[in-house]
Order: sequence, then structure tokens, then C-alpha cells
Amino acid sequence: MDSSYCFPTSEHDITIRLRTAKDDILEATIFYESKYFIQQHQNSAKMHKIFSGKEFDYYSVDLHLEDTRLAYVFYLYDGKEYKYFSEDGLTDTYDYSVSFYNFFQFPYINKADILPMVDWMKTARFYQIFVDRFCIGDTSKDMGYVNLKWGDKPTPKSFAGGDIKGITQKLDYIKSLGANAIYLTPIFKSISNHKYDISDYLEIDEDFGSKKDLKELVDKAHEKGMRIVLDAVFNHCSDEIAQFQDVLNKGKESRYYDWFIIDGDKPDQDNVNYETFASCNYMPKLDTSNPKVRDFLTGIAVHYIKEYHIDGWRLDVSDEVSHDFWRDFRRAVKKADENAVIIGENWHDASVYLKGDQYDSIMNYAFTKAALDFFSTGSLDAKGMAERLNDLLARNSDTVNHMMLNLLDSHDTHRFYSEVSEDDRKFKAALCLLYLFPGVPCIFYGTEIKIPGGYDPDCRKCMDWDKADKIKDTDIYRLLTALAEIRQKYDFSNAYPVITTDESGDVLELRYIISDTGINLYINNTDKDVVLIDKDNCVEHKISAYETLIIVGGKALLSTLK
Amino acid sequence: MDSSYCFPTSEHDITIRLRTAKDDILEATIFYESKYFIQQHQNSAKMHKIFSGKEFDYYSVDLHLEDTRLAYVFYLYDGKEYKYFSEDGLTDTYDYSVSFYNFFQFPYINKADILPMVDWMKTARFYQIFVDRFCIGDTSKDMGYVNLKWGDKPTPKSFAGGDIKGITQKLDYIKSLGANAIYLTPIFKSISNHKYDISDYLEIDEDFGSKKDLKELVDKAHEKGMRIVLDAVFNHCSDEIAQFQDVLNKGKESRYYDWFIIDGDKPDQDNVNYETFASCNYMPKLDTSNPKVRDFLTGIAVHYIKEYHIDGWRLDVSDEVSHDFWRDFRRAVKKADENAVIIGENWHDASVYLKGDQYDSIMNYAFTKAALDFFSTGSLDAKGMAERLNDLLARNSDTVNHMMLNLLDSHDTHRFYSEVSEDDRKFKAALCLLYLFPGVPCIFYGTEIKIPGGYDPDCRKCMDWDKADKIKDTDIYRLLTALAEIRQKYDFSNAYPVITTDESGDVLELRYIISDTGINLYINNTDKDVVLIDKDNCVEHKISAYETLIIVGGKALLSTLK
Repeated sequence: MDSSYCFPTSEHDITIRLRTAKDDILEATIFYESKYFIQQHQNSAKMHKIFSGKEFDYYSVDLHLEDTRLAYVFYLYDGKEYKYFSEDGLTDTYDYSVSFYNFFQFPYINKADILPMVDWMKTARFYQIFVDRFCIGDTSKDMGYVNLKWGDKPTPKSFAGGDIKGITQKLDYIKSLGANAIYLTPIFKSISNHKYDISDYLEIDEDFGSKKDLKELVDKAHEKGMRIVLDAVFNHCSDEIAQFQDVLNKGKESRYYDWFIIDGDKPDQDNVNYETFASCNYMPKLDTSNPKVRDFLTGIAVHYIKEYHIDGWRLDVSDEVSHDFWRDFRRAVKKADENAVIIGENWHDASVYLKGDQYDSIMNYAFTKAALDFFSTGSLDAKGMAERLNDLLARNSDTVNHMMLNLLDSHDTHRFYSEVSEDDRKFKAALCLLYLFPGVPCIFYGTEIKIPGGYDPDCRKCMDWDKADKIKDTDIYRLLTALAEIRQKYDFSNAYPVITTDESGDVLELRYIISDTGINLYINNTDKDVVLIDKDNCVEHKISAYETLIIVGGKALLSTLK
Repeated sequence: MDSSYCFPTSEHDITIRLRTAKDDILEATIFYESKYFIQQHQNSAKMHKIFSGKEFDYYSVDLHLEDTRLAYVFYLYDGKEYKYFSEDGLTDTYDYSVSFYNFFQFPYINKADILPMVDWMKTARFYQIFVDRFCIGDTSKDMGYVNLKWGDKPTPKSFAGGDIKGITQKLDYIKSLGANAIYLTPIFKSISNHKYDISDYLEIDEDFGSKKDLKELVDKAHEKGMRIVLDAVFNHCSDEIAQFQDVLNKGKESRYYDWFIIDGDKPDQDNVNYETFASCNYMPKLDTSNPKVRDFLTGIAVHYIKEYHIDGWRLDVSDEVSHDFWRDFRRAVKKADENAVIIGENWHDASVYLKGDQYDSIMNYAFTKAALDFFSTGSLDAKGMAERLNDLLARNSDTVNHMMLNLLDSHDTHRFYSEVSEDDRKFKAALCLLYLFPGVPCIFYGTEIKIPGGYDPDCRKCMDWDKADKIKDTDIYRLLTALAEIRQKYDFSNAYPVITTDESGDVLELRYIISDTGINLYINNTDKDVVLIDKDNCVEHKISAYETLIIVGGKALLSTLK
């Protein structure tokens, strides 16, 4: 079957995974051949245990094939007996002469079904910006709309004046943190501060600047080797958009009536007889079943790639939009620029969106949750965390795992610094994990100056530039740049760590080997100091409470930078 | 997650399944609510065990939702303790306040992501015809190409003279067997007898007849309430097709060069430097990654629907063609006729093709294999067969299960009659199972007159019309028509049987309740007579060796028609 456990990485390479009950088997072998020859002959390969989760183990093997019409069966040993595993389930024997009925298969590697890596994502380190609160760049603009004094506590209706020019001015600052890609929350015309209710996708919101400003931002970023990803809010729009206004006026007579999902002749904003985002009557849901809506939205996506050369799209509320639409979207976007990245906002297991036909990646909120359970609530101990991280990696293909946008917090969560009760040790340990976990790290603006905060609007405080201007004197800056340097120097895009605990069970370990260099991460997320014996390098290390030890090629770095 | 275990059946209805290790739990409950409200409130529903396979049990629940942004977690009881099951795995407690991180979800029911039932498939009973061997209808045609005397043993290169007119003439015969749909192997221009190597998709092969003949067949069939499904050979074509000939002549200069997958400047038919079907150099594979090829092939599919009003397509070697292509294909076909059925030729678990974006159904060769294991080799006993059938149903959604094209044999297998060593009792028992299993039964031409045969070409013998003309005197005819009558009278399209064994373990039982009528099937696939106590009807039944007892609303029918 071509399942989530079977993914081609090129037209001649494929990875096969096998999930077993935890500790159920000792050995897994795969017998395989082209489906037209397996009756006569079978190749064999040993599988290796790649992940070990809470309830399951996962075995993996990479096969290089000339004929990619792959047929295979597994041969499993549990210490007592051997069993075959085919589409008929577990059997004592296996009859290859009728195997065309019940082998597993990947019928043919079609180019269109492969998910390629977006090249620049291999070394990407993201910085997320909530535009209104980051930096006022255009001091000459009409500031009449601003109702929040920079630095005061924001409310849901606050406008602080941040804009695109402000980001352009701070590119060097962002780069100095070791980031080389920026994801901006929406910038198109909208009456709100967050701009997730868009009334014109083809206009830059005038509070945020102009088309020229966006062009300048992207061009300057590219000059500095940085990337810009914008926010595509295609699940819904603002009720102020011209198309919805037309339907409000003309009802069924409007040519845009079927752009929305309306139960009745006309949208009724009091009784909300149409589909919306959440329960917000001012955010009607767009009907992406309608080919005209699909063309309109994919046209916008392509427009910003072609005209502004942006480097990709983050997709708002992407899980509520049809798969159907995202397939069209991907085809159009990748045709315009195969290196444009597509990152869904799916908070949950998104494996069905990540098979090659829809997104490249998602915002990895499951990683966020694991980090919270481990560093914040403590509901996971080191062993539980190791299992969780293994289970997360088992959800998706290797390619997807290495493009996952891992994050500790965002504009939609509490600030992680507050989640760990402003404990610098835990915060730094979490940053170490964020940067050295497979995938692409993303920090929310202000992480570097330890901005605290609860939910929206509290997590969307204004950037404190007085603090930020002195960033280079801080521990966090030194840690972030050291972590970014490791990511830049070593190619993590093709490597998995062994994720487990030390013998005491107190220390979470991630152990990589990348180009023959051992890169190990030891996280002591307890309130006791521990002594760790690093067998690879034959030394003992003391790791204090909530401290993380990173060893790169024998050289130690402590998260506390002691 | 929106997985194979979570499928919407309308814009407000969804079925959720849960797979557990066999006999692992006693009770499963689902807690659910709109994802925007689940923090505050949860509905609950008991799940019922719907299938019980070899290694797994499957629980199911149908939910009707106003707000279809569904969030849910499971609550499981194993007789000792209760556990929650969420994206975090099994836990003792569950914290709804942060459930947006780890509930399971179906994010939104988009219309485009629903797989609707093809209405006429609910009561369809198929008859498959291999055209060259069925009936010579046009006696006035040039028979120069015919090299097989009707009834002689065919070779791979035999031409017997069967044609479309022959089928049209035999519509009443086919209908008299209780069949109301016909699937024809290919009829387009091709030099072979099977015509799976097509050189012109827009021409009817002249040996088989004309466009007028096809029109007449479809029209006459429709008049009689019958359906016609054609064979779409879109994975590959003949090397004689104009496009490949052009590439053979012009190499890279040909505008059709990228219609194929060629390693080099020109196709080399001796060294076969291009992708083919199997290893056949005369059947080059079409590159469906190429939008022009996609448009060409979907254009053909739509053409026969619009111009000839055919009722659907069977897709040859469909698993080797990209998902990508089938999605375009489906959109085009369903736009032309939403009732056109799409049936893949996937011999293996095809669940990823059956999610609503690609096919409606497949030829259910896994059912064939189960029937062989039970009735032919005996590698499955009644218990094993019950488990196997449960596992097969667990692969796909309810809608797909009820559109599966179940078959005992085809032009690509041994004749089932030979597989059971021409044992009439086993053959009839298998037919009973075929007709009363969820899905759509399909018999291969000549099943009704017990044509024996091994693999191709032996399974493709000429129809014996001397025998067939006396069909009404035969047991098989009486059985087939009785079975068809049951399928016609009762709506099986929404019902599952409980599939298990009797207390002795010897008898395979399928027990349905359809519109308050009990429909039970008891298959004694042993060489001993058994006595079955029918508790529902408080009677005893003797079932002889290899006999099947069918009870419909208390009325008994034996497969042996005694």
C-alpha cells in the first residue's frame, strides 16, 4: 500500500517504514523486488529501528530501485519465532507464487507524487513578526490610526504603528540573531491590527506601507541572503471585501453569491446564515469548491511570487480548507517557483496534507505541546519526552520532518518565557531543543529579549528596542547565535538523532552523527545537578538543574554559557 | 486527524472509526464537540464494534453535526481501567483546557472532500465481457483477421471474432441472469485481441465494430435499465500510437517527446530506454506528469461520457498512474456526469485512492484472494475467513465498501470454477458469498455456464452459446437469479453483516438486518454435514458439506437448490 509509511525521495529511491507494538520484535527484514519479478526472486534488506515512541516502535529502510514498481513483504523475529507480514497479516509461511494478491507495494514512483525538499529550508532559521508591534519604520506616515503608545499593554483593538519599513530597517538586527528567514503575519488591506480579516488581497494595508515597501523588503532581504514568507488567509475573508459586499447588496443575483456558503437568498449578518471563521460574522468563509474562488486565490498566491519574489506562504487555518483547493494551490505556486515554501497552520497531525500534493510543512504545534509538557507543566519526564519526540517524527516522511516549522510560541499562544515562569534556565534549554531538533526552528519576535505574555493580545506586545539595541550583551543572544552557527555549519537536513534518556532516566539525550561529527544534546530538565558520562568522548560532565549540555565534535557548550 | 478512519458522508454527517488490538478493550466512548467549544463542553457517544479482524477490532460511530469543525477524544475501558486516547496517546487524564493542542479532529467538512455514492451502484450487478470471445454479432464483416475457430483453445495471439454487436444482441441474455451492468475490456483501436495496447483512443477497433455500434450498445442497454462501463488504459499505450511514432521519428524534436519517459534523445526499442508497462517495449508508459498528456487523456474520458453516455470507466493498471492524474481525471469525469462510476484496477489495499479525490471503487482482488484461500486452497478456515472479511471491510469507508467491485475471477486470473477443481458445491457457495457480501458483485462471462480455465489465454475461452442457450435449465442460473433478486429487493447499500462463525467454528456466518428483515448466510465449507441452530427463527437446519444456506426473512434457500 502506498501509505504514510512508504515515501519516495526520488524517482529511484524510496523509504519504507514499519510500525510495531513497542518492544514487540527484535528484528525486521524486508523482502522486495519489482512486482513483475517477485515470484521468481526477492532481494532482502535489514530494517533499523528509527524511532521508539510511547506505544510503538518504527523500523525503516531506504531502498534504491532500478524498477520502481516495488513489491515487498516483511519478515519479523520476536526472539521466539519468525513471521511474515503481508496484506494477509501475520503468517507462518508466505507463498510468492500468488504474491501479486497480497504483497505490499508502492506501485510506481511517479514524479508528481514525490515531495522534494525546498532547498533553502535545509538551513533556514525563522523569525516570526507580528507586524503592528515590531517596529515603526515610516515616521512620516499619518499616525492618526495609532491608539497604543509603544510599550503600553495592548488590547484586542490596539494599533501601535509597526510597519513593513520597520522590518526592512531591522533586517541586519534579525540577521545578527542568526535568523535567515522571516514569516510575517498578514499585511494586506484589513481594518484589524492582526489583518486576518482581509478586504483586499491585492493591496498592502496602508497602515503597514505600500507595494513599494514590500518590494523593498523582499529585495533587501534577498540581498542579505534572507527569505520572506507571507501569510495566506484563504479560509475566510473580511465582510468588507468587495465580493461579499456585492452579495450583501444583491443576494442571489450577485455573481459572487456562490463564492460563499450561504443558507438562504442573502447573507444575514445578525442571524449568521453563512459559514464563517469560528463564529465571527465579519469573517465569511470562502467556498473553495467553486473553481472561480480557487482561481482567484491561487492567482493571488502566484501574483506575490511573480511580482514580489516572496519565498513562500504560510497558510492560515489551512486545515479547514479543502484538500482539493490546496492541491490546486500547490500546483500553481510550485509552477511559479519550485522553491516557494508552503507551510500550513495545522495544529494537529497533518500527515494527509504532507504527502507531496499539498503543503511542504506545517507550523509544528505538536512540538510546542511537547515542549510545554516537558519544560512547563512537567507532565512529561525525560523518558516521556523522548517517546513523544519519537512519535512526532514517526508521523511524517523524512523530507517533511526536515521542513517542519518548529516553534515554542507564536501570536496564537502564550509566550513560552511566561510558560516556564520566566525561568531563564528552562527557557534556554527549550531553545537548545528547538534549534537542534530535526526541522526548521522559528522564534517569535522578542524571544531574544525574553518578552513575557499570556494569550492574545498579551503575546503581541510591542518590541522593546531599548533592550534589543543592547542584545549583543545578553546570554540569550550568545546562545541563539551559537545554536544558529551549529545549524549553519552542519547539514541537519538529512539526519535524525537517537532520542532517548541517559541510564538514570533523568537526562533527555539527542545524539546525532552528521558528516562523522557527533552532535549531542543532553537536557537535564530536573531540579538536581547530574553527572553525565559521555562515553563517546570519555569524559564526565556536570549538568546543573535545568541546564543543557551540547557537545559538537567533542567540544562542549552549556546552555547557561558557563 | 482526517484519516482513513474518519470519513464524512454528507456536509453534516461523519463516521469515526477506531482500531484497537484484538480483544484489547471492552468499551469505547467518543467525547466530541465543535473545536471552538470543546474546552467548555463535550458531547459523548458510545461506539460499537463494527469489524473484528485477525489482529484488530474496529469500533465505529456515526455523528450528525451542526458545526462540522469536529474535535474529539476517545475514552476506553479494558475491564480494569479507563484511559483517554488523544494525539498524545493513552493517558489517565485529559485536560480539555489545552485540548486544541492534542484532540483528534476533522477540521471542517468541505463538500469537495466527500465521496458520494454513485446512485445506480447501490443495486448494480456486473457482468464482465472479454469482447473478442463473447459473441460474433456482425456476421457481414470481413472475418479475415479471425484465426481461432469458435470454441477452440485460444493462444495469446488468437482472434475469435467477438464484437460489440454481439454484446448488443445478448443484452437480454445478460439481463436474464440478473445482471444490470456490463464492464467491457478495451474496445479502442489496437492490434491485439485484448486491446490493452491502444493506438487510437478515439477510434473503435474495426474488428469490434464502429462508433455507431457503441452508440447502439449503450442506448439499447439504457433502454433495458442496464449500464455500460468501458476500460480506460491510460497508464500506457501502443507503440503504434501517432504520438509515439512521431517521437520514434523525430526524437527530442517531436512535440510529443515529453509525453513519454525517455532516457536519451530518442526511444530505442531494442534497448528499451523508456518506461513501459511491465517489460513490454511495445507498450510505452504515458507521462501523466505532463499537463498535455493529462488534458489529452481526461479529454478522451469525457468524450465517451458526453458523446456515448457510457456509465463509467474501469482504470487499467491504475495504481501505477500518479494520484495527481486521477484527481484531474475524477474532476473532469464527475463534471461531465456525476453518476459515472470510476473503478480502479488496484489489486492491493487502495485506501489512499479511495478518499473521495480519485476513484469510487476498485476491482476487489483482495476479496478474490480471500475466496481462494477459503474455497480453493483451504488455507483459511471459517474463523480465518470471517476475520479476513472483517479486515477487508475495515480498509475503506462505508461508501467505498458498498461500491467495491467484488469478483471471483477475471480475464487476469484462473477461472474460479477451475480453482475449486470444478466442484459445483464450492462454486455455488462462493457465488452466494459474492452476491451477498457488501459491495457490487461482478461475474466474468461464462461463469453461468461454468467455463473452466487457467491463466490467460485459458481464462479467455470463447463463450459456449449452445450451453448458454439452455441456461434456464441449470442450477447456476437459478441460483444467480435468486441471488440477484435478493440484491434487488433489499437495499444492501447501507448495511453491514456481522461476519463470524457459528459456535462449532465450522460455519461462516454473515448476518444482516435490512429494513427489519434478517438476511443470513451460513456457509459450510467443510466436508462434513452440520446442523445449524437458527436462534433467530428457532429452527434447525441441516447444511451439507460445502453447502450454503441463505435465510431471508425466515425463508430458507440452499445453494444446492435442494
